[in-house]
Amino acid sequence: MKTHHIIAAALVSTLALTSIHAADPLPSWNDGKAKQSITAFVEKVTKEGSADFVPPAERIATFDNDGCLWAEQPMYFQFFFALDRIKILAPRHPEWKDKEPFASLLKGDMKSALAGGEASLVQIVMATHAGLTTEEFEKAVTDWLATAKHPKTGRPFTEMVYQPMVELLSYLRANGFKNFIVSGGGIEFMRPWTEKVYGIPPEQVIGSSGGLKYELRDGKPALVKLPEIAHNDDKEGKPVGIQRHIGRRPIAAFGNSDGDLQMLQWTAAGAGPRFCLYVHHDDAAREWAYDRESHIGKLDKGLDEAAAKNWTVVSMKGDWKNIYPPEKK
Amino acid sequence: MKTHHIIAAALVSTLALTSIHAADPLPSWNDGKAKQSITAFVEKVTKEGSADFVPPAERIATFDNDGCLWAEQPMYFQFFFALDRIKILAPRHPEWKDKEPFASLLKGDMKSALAGGEASLVQIVMATHAGLTTEEFEKAVTDWLATAKHPKTGRPFTEMVYQPMVELLSYLRANGFKNFIVSGGGIEFMRPWTEKVYGIPPEQVIGSSGGLKYELRDGKPALVKLPEIAHNDDKEGKPVGIQRHIGRRPIAAFGNSDGDLQMLQWTAAGAGPRFCLYVHHDDAAREWAYDRESHIGKLDKGLDEAAAKNWTVVSMKGDWKNIYPPEKK
Repeated sequence: MKTHHIIAAALVSTLALTSIHAADPLPSWNDGKAKQSITAFVEKVTKEGSADFVPPAERIATFDNDGCLWAEQPMYFQFFFALDRIKILAPRHPEWKDKEPFASLLKGDMKSALAGGEASLVQIVMATHAGLTTEEFEKAVTDWLATAKHPKTGRPFTEMVYQPMVELLSYLRANGFKNFIVSGGGIEFMRPWTEKVYGIPPEQVIGSSGGLKYELRDGKPALVKLPEIAHNDDKEGKPVGIQRHIGRRPIAAFGNSDGDLQMLQWTAAGAGPRFCLYVHHDDAAREWAYDRESHIGKLDKGLDEAAAKNWTVVSMKGDWKNIYPPEKK
Repeated sequence: MKTHHIIAAALVSTLALTSIHAADPLPSWNDGKAKQSITAFVEKVTKEGSADFVPPAERIATFDNDGCLWAEQPMYFQFFFALDRIKILAPRHPEWKDKEPFASLLKGDMKSALAGGEASLVQIVMATHAGLTTEEFEKAVTDWLATAKHPKTGRPFTEMVYQPMVELLSYLRANGFKNFIVSGGGIEFMRPWTEKVYGIPPEQVIGSSGGLKYELRDGKPALVKLPEIAHNDDKEGKPVGIQRHIGRRPIAAFGNSDGDLQMLQWTAAGAGPRFCLYVHHDDAAREWAYDRESHIGKLDKGLDEAAAKNWTVVSMKGDWKNIYPPEKK
């Protein structure tokens, strides 16, 4: 009898857990319009026999990364990586002492270094990323992430991911979706950690990429990163990257800036049920607040189009119970 | 009692089927070294606890398409598609009557048309592929495949696939592998049919690709194919395409020509268990026989390297019971 009681108790608690889980697949999301729009869409497209049913193979969801899955302030995290690499590489580049933007960077004068705008950024990324083999670069990223800390929070960058979005990725995956990252960030910068942090394997990561050259190094095949841009995965580049990598139009797309607008438009313009969502950075206390005037992650046209087309706009302040995952001890 | 007998009988026949399946996952392959090398590799990497075990996420297999998964004689099937499109498009291009290679093609003089070598080929493909949206192109491919017939066998091109290789794809998939096509052929030419024919979804197809432009057509977003090559997925381009799309090195690679050699080398050079296989076209009676001297699918350096490195070389004549799947009525 005692055994039966234990089994019964275990069954009851399992059922209770199951029903809590079924009732709340997104525990870090406050109840409200944003959360409801997500679950309503997922329930609709996964309901067999319904007119809106979408077969699992076509449940493609695409996510921007910077500012959508992890933070992007005070600057893109990949840029912190590039700056740290400049310090590592400087002894081998004495000419940088007199050459911009490197001279200013090495003096810690970020403002002068970035006076050249996007051209300076590209120069910095090329100088710090090219010449390495893909395997050397992967190791450089992994080593950097193991020790680097965010200047404001002091947390590892891979803990600056948005807990509600990580739950959303799991929820979609559990409902037969295949999640892809579609980011303006470097494809090789993301792949070493997206599987562990987001559950997104390297073959489901799309990003900006440099040229690659296949060559023999000491008789062994190697792929060497070239100082040239092969694909700029931003704005119009996002639908292009999606077509090239996936070859199928997403049915759901998630972004946070005008750089994601074409991806959302491309997604929305397909036939059948579609879902588009913008994360709105409006939480200065727990994260950052920026939109129409920001130089990073500017969200201006996107806000207007979201309103006009009735896309979901997530208020980080109002819709999210937590921003980041709990700190690891 | 009767019910029990039926259940018992059903169980026995299920077990019998299971054991036949387990004993012969590759029924179109003759017993021999080639088949044994495949099953030995798969058993090794899927055996939990063994030193050679490879986790499912890393079980990446890459396959060439032309001459490896389907036939490529008397010329690449995509080229038949391009020729048929030239006939369709000719009324809209009166200037083709006096312009090579189109003038010769329209007269049916293939030899003169191709006198310009690869440059002529590129010109023909560009003229017939560019300007369409990706959706229009997909429809053009699908419509063509529905009626086009191979000039020698009279069969639809999608029935000119190699039955033993289709079984191999299933066998690998059943063992947790993720199969990718890595072809010199056009990525958009393959994606409309690879899922149905090979069980390979569009996002696992890598190929040569043209430029794409995102634009609004009648206010609707469209991706338009440009007359320029974005990626040539042949030779050194194959490891580059693999890295760009998958971001992970395959543990098994399958090809049939020198154009696949770099893919096999790149695969073989990784750490841990690796498998490389060449399909050798040596069956003039049932298919075609060609290798070192062929202008299509030339296999010369690859044969030498396969011998030196002990890669598997499949004799279509000796190792395969059937070439094509049974004809559909």
